[in-house]
Amino acid sequence: MLSAIRSGDRVALGRAITLVESTRPDHQEQAQQLIEACLPYSGNSIRLGITGVPGVGKSTFIEALGLHLIDLGKKPAVLAIDPSSSISKGSILGDKTRMNQLSVNQHAFIRPTASGGSLGGVARRTRETIILCEAAGFDVVLIETVGVGQSETMVSQLVDVFLLLMLSGAGDELQGIKRGIMEMADALVINKADGDNLKPAQRAAIEYKNALHLFPAAAGGWVPQVSTCSSTTGDGIAETWQVILDHQSTMSEQGLKEARRKDQSLFWFRQNMNEVLLEQFRAMPGMADEISALETQVANQSISPYRAAYQLIHQHLK
Amino acid sequence: MLSAIRSGDRVALGRAITLVESTRPDHQEQAQQLIEACLPYSGNSIRLGITGVPGVGKSTFIEALGLHLIDLGKKPAVLAIDPSSSISKGSILGDKTRMNQLSVNQHAFIRPTASGGSLGGVARRTRETIILCEAAGFDVVLIETVGVGQSETMVSQLVDVFLLLMLSGAGDELQGIKRGIMEMADALVINKADGDNLKPAQRAAIEYKNALHLFPAAAGGWVPQVSTCSSTTGDGIAETWQVILDHQSTMSEQGLKEARRKDQSLFWFRQNMNEVLLEQFRAMPGMADEISALETQVANQSISPYRAAYQLIHQHLK
Repeated sequence: MLSAIRSGDRVALGRAITLVESTRPDHQEQAQQLIEACLPYSGNSIRLGITGVPGVGKSTFIEALGLHLIDLGKKPAVLAIDPSSSISKGSILGDKTRMNQLSVNQHAFIRPTASGGSLGGVARRTRETIILCEAAGFDVVLIETVGVGQSETMVSQLVDVFLLLMLSGAGDELQGIKRGIMEMADALVINKADGDNLKPAQRAAIEYKNALHLFPAAAGGWVPQVSTCSSTTGDGIAETWQVILDHQSTMSEQGLKEARRKDQSLFWFRQNMNEVLLEQFRAMPGMADEISALETQVANQSISPYRAAYQLIHQHLK
Repeated sequence: MLSAIRSGDRVALGRAITLVESTRPDHQEQAQQLIEACLPYSGNSIRLGITGVPGVGKSTFIEALGLHLIDLGKKPAVLAIDPSSSISKGSILGDKTRMNQLSVNQHAFIRPTASGGSLGGVARRTRETIILCEAAGFDVVLIETVGVGQSETMVSQLVDVFLLLMLSGAGDELQGIKRGIMEMADALVINKADGDNLKPAQRAAIEYKNALHLFPAAAGGWVPQVSTCSSTTGDGIAETWQVILDHQSTMSEQGLKEARRKDQSLFWFRQNMNEVLLEQFRAMPGMADEISALETQVANQSISPYRAAYQLIHQHLK
């Protein structure tokens, strides 16, 4: 299976991802062995996170960027994740349909990741899928997520560079974007900058450019860049890719690309340790009910949150 | 002790806070009883978080705001927290010295909270201190923290309204401010808006005002407000207080003040549950060493973060 993946066999890659996603213990064991075999061949990609609210045009943008990357001789893989499963099914089907050129291109690979489960679980599967894609020779891994809920916080901990897609139109584009996302972004892209929308998009780009200078810079002194683009005309796609390359070389020069990945690994180690401990604790008989009863009391202010937690744990663990 | 606190006796309040801060089990038991006795008399204050980098003038601002509140017939309590203990000792001593009018005013109460320990521990002590201050009749609790590290994330989970102090001066004022803080703020205050600094401060305020409209609004559609102020001349102090009142009435009208506090209680319940579980796990013999060995391997990429966490836990817990 490793050699099939290494040769770029997309069917083998798909099967390997299915193994990673399976909850069957024997599959999990096989998946872990495969991941470890792939690890030495992984890491040589740009891991690019892309977020934005529904309707911002993520899939058409990814299709346009993906085709541009193929023109440059690159091999893009697209992973779509969305831990809020019901929305996800719709949007992922939509993606597959909308990325109709990219999905049939032999140099690209598109895969929705299985949604549902804990955030740590989704993150683990996505991270392992990235490793498989890299081992299969994909050198740009695009990870798409919806800019709502917690998924984009998770994705920002999985990628080298994080891109926020927006639309022009005073205020409207902010509907649904969570606070905090803007400050996670390494680059903003004002999408649908064409036709009647071109001027407003350019104006919005200038406004954001000015605004972002007033905000703290990211690691390495990087000030988030703003570009406009149109997935229809293709304008701005090359420039947006250049912004990503600039970001990556700024990071690499300062050793920050590797540092970010190390921090992310440690983050997931701790996160997962917490999550598994909590899961085991919650799995004790009657515990789920007890926790939700205490949550009610905490919300009602009839017990302090600290005392509630302390009592609960000391009652059940020595 | 409850009746002494309820009568506004500041010496009794100080002693009660010392109990809360003590790690002795018998003190902790007394403290918990006292907190529970105070709970019915708590909650009736505006809990105001104030952050900003060292040098921004937090203590002079708090002194000016505190004296203004006293003029309005209010009773302010000031808690200074800084989990990074070594810096804290300096800044807290500094605060006590700099707030020389407020610290001797009989309507005010100033208390540095004991630093050090886990974030959850500092949060618990701060939260319990807030309850004690409220029971003692203080109706505005100002919680000061340095805008570096993780303390301001914690403070934002303890307060009703979160204020970020800044200076004018293109870019310089951002030195040391962590990304993400700006988007936590309910209001920005450009401090030291006097003398030669007045015009630049006013210009900065306009720029931030424009910029913040481009960012997602906070809960209840609240767009963070920007004011300028001078702790020396007193200009803008009343206006800044008005911004806080506006924020609070916007929140209260929509039931969001109570909702925010409930969410915060649940946040601390879960946070504390996680923290205590992790502490107990870490306290197993040899565990700290084993964890740090695994962290090295995870950082080196010789083991996946998920496998490392999974192995560790399943080796030690059934």
